[in-house]
Amino acid sequence: MFKLSPLGKRLGSIPFKPQPNHPLLNDESSVIGFVGLGNMGFNMAKNLVTKSSNSIIVYDINKDATSKFSQIQVPLSSNNDSPRISVASNLSEIAAKSNYIITMLPESAHVKAAYCGKDGLLAHLKPGTVCIDSSTIDTHVSIEVSNLISDKGAIPLDAPVSGGVMGAEAGSLTFMVGGRSSDEFLIAKDILQFMGSKIIHCGGLGTGQTVKICNNMLLGSAMIATAEAMALGTKLGVDPKLLSTVINSSSGRCWSSEVSNPCPGVLPNAPSSRDYNDGFASKLMLKDMYLSLNAAKSQKIPLLLSSLSTQIYGHVCNDADLANKDFSSVFKWINKK
Amino acid sequence: MFKLSPLGKRLGSIPFKPQPNHPLLNDESSVIGFVGLGNMGFNMAKNLVTKSSNSIIVYDINKDATSKFSQIQVPLSSNNDSPRISVASNLSEIAAKSNYIITMLPESAHVKAAYCGKDGLLAHLKPGTVCIDSSTIDTHVSIEVSNLISDKGAIPLDAPVSGGVMGAEAGSLTFMVGGRSSDEFLIAKDILQFMGSKIIHCGGLGTGQTVKICNNMLLGSAMIATAEAMALGTKLGVDPKLLSTVINSSSGRCWSSEVSNPCPGVLPNAPSSRDYNDGFASKLMLKDMYLSLNAAKSQKIPLLLSSLSTQIYGHVCNDADLANKDFSSVFKWINKK
Amino acid sequence: MFKLSPLGKRLGSIPFKPQPNHPLLNDESSVIGFVGLGNMGFNMAKNLVTKSSNSIIVYDINKDATSKFSQIQVPLSSNNDSPRISVASNLSEIAAKSNYIITMLPESAHVKAAYCGKDGLLAHLKPGTVCIDSSTIDTHVSIEVSNLISDKGAIPLDAPVSGGVMGAEAGSLTFMVGGRSSDEFLIAKDILQFMGSKIIHCGGLGTGQTVKICNNMLLGSAMIATAEAMALGTKLGVDPKLLSTVINSSSGRCWSSEVSNPCPGVLPNAPSSRDYNDGFASKLMLKDMYLSLNAAKSQKIPLLLSSLSTQIYGHVCNDADLANKDFSSVFKWINKK
Amino acid sequence: MFKLSPLGKRLGSIPFKPQPNHPLLNDESSVIGFVGLGNMGFNMAKNLVTKSSNSIIVYDINKDATSKFSQIQVPLSSNNDSPRISVASNLSEIAAKSNYIITMLPESAHVKAAYCGKDGLLAHLKPGTVCIDSSTIDTHVSIEVSNLISDKGAIPLDAPVSGGVMGAEAGSLTFMVGGRSSDEFLIAKDILQFMGSKIIHCGGLGTGQTVKICNNMLLGSAMIATAEAMALGTKLGVDPKLLSTVINSSSGRCWSSEVSNPCPGVLPNAPSSRDYNDGFASKLMLKDMYLSLNAAKSQKIPLLLSSLSTQIYGHVCNDADLANKDFSSVFKWINKK
Repeated sequence: MFKLSPLGKRLGSIPFKPQPNHPLLNDESSVIGFVGLGNMGFNMAKNLVTKSSNSIIVYDINKDATSKFSQIQVPLSSNNDSPRISVASNLSEIAAKSNYIITMLPESAHVKAAYCGKDGLLAHLKPGTVCIDSSTIDTHVSIEVSNLISDKGAIPLDAPVSGGVMGAEAGSLTFMVGGRSSDEFLIAKDILQFMGSKIIHCGGLGTGQTVKICNNMLLGSAMIATAEAMALGTKLGVDPKLLSTVINSSSGRCWSSEVSNPCPGVLPNAPSSRDYNDGFASKLMLKDMYLSLNAAKSQKIPLLLSSLSTQIYGHVCNDADLANKDFSSVFKWINKK
Repeated sequence: MFKLSPLGKRLGSIPFKPQPNHPLLNDESSVIGFVGLGNMGFNMAKNLVTKSSNSIIVYDINKDATSKFSQIQVPLSSNNDSPRISVASNLSEIAAKSNYIITMLPESAHVKAAYCGKDGLLAHLKPGTVCIDSSTIDTHVSIEVSNLISDKGAIPLDAPVSGGVMGAEAGSLTFMVGGRSSDEFLIAKDILQFMGSKIIHCGGLGTGQTVKICNNMLLGSAMIATAEAMALGTKLGVDPKLLSTVINSSSGRCWSSEVSNPCPGVLPNAPSSRDYNDGFASKLMLKDMYLSLNAAKSQKIPLLLSSLSTQIYGHVCNDADLANKDFSSVFKWINKK
Repeated sequence: MFKLSPLGKRLGSIPFKPQPNHPLLNDESSVIGFVGLGNMGFNMAKNLVTKSSNSIIVYDINKDATSKFSQIQVPLSSNNDSPRISVASNLSEIAAKSNYIITMLPESAHVKAAYCGKDGLLAHLKPGTVCIDSSTIDTHVSIEVSNLISDKGAIPLDAPVSGGVMGAEAGSLTFMVGGRSSDEFLIAKDILQFMGSKIIHCGGLGTGQTVKICNNMLLGSAMIATAEAMALGTKLGVDPKLLSTVINSSSGRCWSSEVSNPCPGVLPNAPSSRDYNDGFASKLMLKDMYLSLNAAKSQKIPLLLSSLSTQIYGHVCNDADLANKDFSSVFKWINKK
Repeated sequence: MFKLSPLGKRLGSIPFKPQPNHPLLNDESSVIGFVGLGNMGFNMAKNLVTKSSNSIIVYDINKDATSKFSQIQVPLSSNNDSPRISVASNLSEIAAKSNYIITMLPESAHVKAAYCGKDGLLAHLKPGTVCIDSSTIDTHVSIEVSNLISDKGAIPLDAPVSGGVMGAEAGSLTFMVGGRSSDEFLIAKDILQFMGSKIIHCGGLGTGQTVKICNNMLLGSAMIATAEAMALGTKLGVDPKLLSTVINSSSGRCWSSEVSNPCPGVLPNAPSSRDYNDGFASKLMLKDMYLSLNAAKSQKIPLLLSSLSTQIYGHVCNDADLANKDFSSVFKWINKK
């Protein structure tokens, strides 16, 4: 089990400018509030409490999730010998008790409600609280909420993740982080490292969201392009493994051809080889594609290809068989009769 | 300078079944006919004659090209002390004098005309001649011509290339080869190795073409997807180098983001960083995309994304500035006002 | 000048059920509040005050617009000999003084702010006020605001228009109206008839918006389809007038070919024949297309074609020459080199 | 029964310039060759022989079709009291015996084979023969064949039709005609009027094909646009009949909304209201869309929307249920789960 390292030590060449209102971290007394114990959040919070020595207070409207979380066995706090897991009755309690708050929620509206709603986090936020939102949401909503957090004297960071439920379980997520400064990024990194193996500073507020959706938007189209190429080549009589091997050593190479080839049988460990189960659900890809289109609309950038890809995933998601399968099942949709 | 290795020695575990009509190669006496001395063909033929010890006879309707080729300095034939480069007056002469014929022509119609036209290659083809077409053409035309070559007792192979003019110059092309058998593939490989560093057997007749166009079709869409992601991310304030670095370590990774990023300045050696010069011209990508769509049409496979990408390159090619630039200039088209 | 006809007389076969909180209209004493004096709203409000005998109170953040409006010459009120035009200082005053409120605002956010903002209309709305929103906005926002109006005991109707600035000037707009009942539709029609020549009851709350955007979405794609057909046919040497004549007598016939052909010279009175000026601006079409896509997203209906059309108008709007021209200028974009 | 009117009489204001090699029509002795007795051709030829007084000689590789045709009861020739229907053994016989030749074949390749194949029509064509091709084929193939016909001293015209099998039966087809001159158009019109009610001169050779495919291409996209609008509007709760009524009185109006609305129940007589039977098959629309894209490719005109529409019909045609249904069944494909 690791402890949070004293903040100053790890900063290396990045000069440290303490934020006026920020309580320097005293690891063991810092309390982490965690809002959102879904498939992702539950596993992230579990890693946090088992790998760090901090106390954690959790909140979710789903009482089964909080009840299940409170049964995780962890050592008592070395600080005061009290239990390290508690369940908050409401968001005000999270705000009142936490030095760090992590939110992991499904959509923009949930994040906005959690912070700005009546009796939401903002109303009771303590100055200096580090507020990390790991939800994948609209960039402009992220920035809007972050600014409100700033106004309260707290420290906002957007830190969406990639890596899926398996990455959340393994603590190997990638965090793409936007924040006001390198220092504040490093403060957040202290916490995020318990849940992820790659913590990337993407720039100012909102850039974590932006990088996340740009990556996924590109992935979404590249997967369809790969599926179309595999569909065409195999229909014309080329062996799918040979086809993907050549592509992977040529300019067609991409994550979708190399790591998660959509044609069943090409890669034994890819979702396509297990009937598209246990991957990144098409509906989540559709959600991320729409976040990208929203951002593009706001910037007046026409995205012909991504826009079409989005609608294609819309069709995949309307297919009863494929709705919850890995998004590489677009291959199946393309070949459907 | 290499000599063609005795055929049998290199076959390894693939059992060698001599083709009835095939003259076993006596390296030094084999004559190679080369049809098509364009930007690609000239450099390929040059490598062939300088790296091998065979004689070569070339043909092109462009007399400047054949004249220039005949001035290349190479040692005399060790076989009979005669010059190793000659220029044919017509295709009949190529057919009459060659043991190998390589064609490197712009489009389906040219290949068809070279073989099937009045006084074309087919009319005078000797049984056993190894006929390698390295043009990128319609799969069905390729198969049709190959079957006519077979009917004459000669050996057809389709062997389109990737690697561009620079690869042709360096002799580092990739050949994607379709042929009737592994033995015949190996016979062709003996020759192709002087022009390329990767010679891949893709399967039966036509599969070389298929693999080539599937790769390029995927590449075409992935490039546009990358360009859209880079356009969106940078517009939203993310540093383009950082954005591409994160993408390259994530699921958005592809050749277009890693090797030839379309956003100027991200990769100093990419065409985008030299105003999109000296790459793979948009018009060639457009040509390959159309070959893919033709093949897909014949197989009744609807390709929503590739079809849109094709039309997008159509727009790029209609732009006077971008028509002959590298196809990653689609980034410029997307950002155009 | 018309007066509002006594309500009951015009109802024809539709049985009249007075709404409990609705003050039966006494034409001359009814005051109409009008919020939003832009290009459309100014002309609509002007028709209302000049064609009816009611008093009108207007509000706009643009003081030039309200000042200009207050200078319109109309007879005094026959009711009390007072001036029939007044300018409100704020929205509260509109709410407090009006029996009818018409809003004509650019986007969803403006309508929401006007009603729900601090000191917005809702806060001071009198029970029984007829609240007609003629803005073209998101269907779900329209329904949401309508429900809040209902909660205050007032009568909500969505009544977006088609016909453009010229229709607003001429009083010949088409109103597509959604409301809670036929009776309430008829109450609104009493007012709308002064501004439009076609008042259509589309169904329940929100249906006015839905019908409007469905029509415009179809129009948006049909215009592009027409532009593509005209571009192809004329490039192939067919006379554009002849081409459109044949299309108009065949199955290709549509409003875009018959009434507003995008090819210059085909129809002397179409925007295309006056350099695409004075029509329905591309940016307004783009706005409406996005409203459609939002609605489709909420209903999980993938719209491949409309989605692509939207992005095409995005490109048109990014073209400095075409941004504010009639949307049929997509023809020019298609033919651009 | 009509007779062909003496040629000169009907020319009205168009000055008549006799073509050097053209035998002025002597109605009763003119023989019409008809090649292609499919669903369309059979009915067209039947109208021709029953409504005119000319003799007809037919050819089809399907012997059942020619046999069935030869059993049609018509009066003997008033010219020589001989039967007016005969069946040719081969194309040479058609060429040798006909003053007019009409071809009604499925695709470009068939027309090319019928004229240019070994023992095809060209080989035995008499100078002055009027050669009308009513097939819908590639514009460039049409022009190519027409030029070969011209070279033989015969008179080429392209005259594709719209109106479907029902129009062919009723003799109410529309012919879109390209020809070398107005005079030659009028010569063809003499014959075409027995099969169609609208005979339109579109311009020079190939323009008949061009106008046909431009119309159908526009129709193809407009139908999808209509289907998307109807799908969205009805999902949002608007009555489909009301929605189409408003659209039809507004700018969304098009043939697909007014005459063949794709939403079942809106128009009792539309294919959509009889499970999409007995209309214009999706596969024929797909064929025409591809003809358009081929033409656009040759002219270097990118067609983003039409290209996508084509692939959408590709999906419809791959659906076992919808493959042979009316193309308005794209509505069903869009709503498919």
